[in-house]
Amino acid sequence: MTIRAVVYGVGPIGQLIARVALEKGFDVVGAIDIDPQKVGKDLGEVLGLGKTLGIKVESDADKVLRDSNPDVVLHSTGSFFDEVYPQIMRAIRVGADVVSTCETLAWPWYRYPDLAELVDNYARNYGSTVLGAGVNPGFVFDVLPAVLSTTLTRLEKITVTRSLDASKRRYSFQKKIGLGMTPTQFREALGRGEITAHVGFAESVLLMASMMGLRLDKVEEGQEAIIADRHYETQYFRIEEGQVRGVVGHGSGFISDKEVIRVELRACVECEDFEEVRLMGEPSITWRSTGTSGDPATAAVIVNLAPRVLNARPGLVTLKDLVNYSYTA
Amino acid sequence: MTIRAVVYGVGPIGQLIARVALEKGFDVVGAIDIDPQKVGKDLGEVLGLGKTLGIKVESDADKVLRDSNPDVVLHSTGSFFDEVYPQIMRAIRVGADVVSTCETLAWPWYRYPDLAELVDNYARNYGSTVLGAGVNPGFVFDVLPAVLSTTLTRLEKITVTRSLDASKRRYSFQKKIGLGMTPTQFREALGRGEITAHVGFAESVLLMASMMGLRLDKVEEGQEAIIADRHYETQYFRIEEGQVRGVVGHGSGFISDKEVIRVELRACVECEDFEEVRLMGEPSITWRSTGTSGDPATAAVIVNLAPRVLNARPGLVTLKDLVNYSYTA
Repeated sequence: MTIRAVVYGVGPIGQLIARVALEKGFDVVGAIDIDPQKVGKDLGEVLGLGKTLGIKVESDADKVLRDSNPDVVLHSTGSFFDEVYPQIMRAIRVGADVVSTCETLAWPWYRYPDLAELVDNYARNYGSTVLGAGVNPGFVFDVLPAVLSTTLTRLEKITVTRSLDASKRRYSFQKKIGLGMTPTQFREALGRGEITAHVGFAESVLLMASMMGLRLDKVEEGQEAIIADRHYETQYFRIEEGQVRGVVGHGSGFISDKEVIRVELRACVECEDFEEVRLMGEPSITWRSTGTSGDPATAAVIVNLAPRVLNARPGLVTLKDLVNYSYTA
Repeated sequence: MTIRAVVYGVGPIGQLIARVALEKGFDVVGAIDIDPQKVGKDLGEVLGLGKTLGIKVESDADKVLRDSNPDVVLHSTGSFFDEVYPQIMRAIRVGADVVSTCETLAWPWYRYPDLAELVDNYARNYGSTVLGAGVNPGFVFDVLPAVLSTTLTRLEKITVTRSLDASKRRYSFQKKIGLGMTPTQFREALGRGEITAHVGFAESVLLMASMMGLRLDKVEEGQEAIIADRHYETQYFRIEEGQVRGVVGHGSGFISDKEVIRVELRACVECEDFEEVRLMGEPSITWRSTGTSGDPATAAVIVNLAPRVLNARPGLVTLKDLVNYSYTA
């Protein structure tokens, strides 16, 4: 069966998602974005495919969804569920399933418990499945360590480190981690929400814990700037000594004041590219990667999971519903 | 809810499984084995716990299963489904679910399609779930690479290497890989089934491919001896130059004569302990471990999955039913 998909959000990630969906033989039947630079253009042109697809990017989401009758909506417009839920409701209303990069939707009961209950109820009534996924939350900091934990008979602690060279990433990524700001500017911009750095540490911790059946007493998260000790330069930013070279952030899960889960992201200019999952207990083991490319991997997770979401139960689900394979506390 | 479990098979792996189940708070309500050295003894004594458990190891499986009314049977008596299926039927008959280390049960339709259909039918009629799992098949060569593949937008080939130092393993493992045999003895013993080396390469390849929706045209597997170039010694074997120091085996999956999956096991004296999963495509990535301890990890997988199998659909299921998260072809 060919999957009929609407791409909701045609920013950098949405464009990657659209490309991958097309490569994998999805029938892309609609594209939604509000950017005046894109509205009215053919999706093929926006993607730089060198050919038209007969699908115009449109800003009237209700019209696109009603006219195109999609099986699934591939949604990538924002990180915060309380900002994007009306978009997700529109997809639910036409009976489509939704796979979204919205980070806080990966475990929506943490930040938005009431909204999560409403949308869950709404989705069930329309027979629609809604899933938040991506590489992070969605893979490195939650699903992967949970799966790896299955080989442990006794688990003491999981730490996951993701380190990446921010200079290789797109402009909007470099901007959101505050490159070139002074430490004061960074703190203020982060506090005011003008830059977000990484969103979803707590969601990853809670998703992982839930997959393992671990009952956490407390979840914490935090981010701070990594300050340059010399001059650095990227394609987009010049960074002087004393300015922000990147960000280090973490999420932690505690049981009785003991940290049992720690996920840490280091994104900075000239940081090494790797992930490392350390599982401490019996038998302990460490897995290390050559580095997951964030943007393509996010698009991959979204598109690879889309056919699987079509067969999942209606409602607001999480990756716990798709992966029933983990250490069991 | 406390899980009532019967341990079926109290060999080296069964003992580990029993220990882990007890540690995790399972109510171990029965133990079955035919070894005269164990029958009649208290399970606590057999496990060397220094205390009795009030559970005797018994050889009459039907009686144990009938009297103990288990939720789940943790089964580890053999590698070949056509030899162990009557034991699994006994568990089904009392309505228990089964998690088994039987390697060929991880994808039973490869070697035993008719038997698999019969047992599937039988299990459905009794409302029982039957799963083959373990570390291998069950983790390193199938579930793990399938999960890791989710971050790829385009997959060309997956190769998995598991390398382990056989000198650190138990006697029966060292024996089954033919340590100290001449090359001729090895070939003959393997041909006659007197030693098995690793069982389940093809099952892993087929399970992984099925999780990804890859349609293979051909599956191959093979094993050969690694010959010592000097004297080696383990706790149990003396190996002279020219004798068997270990085994290298593989399973391969092909599409149109192109090898798209290759899993390889190197088990030899003084081999390095590690696993490596190489995912080639877009974006390529490699994950490498410090080495999975085979026996404890097998026990961990069996016991960690037991509560999850209790909630799975009746019938002969595979890990594909528990893990719906993978690259999608």
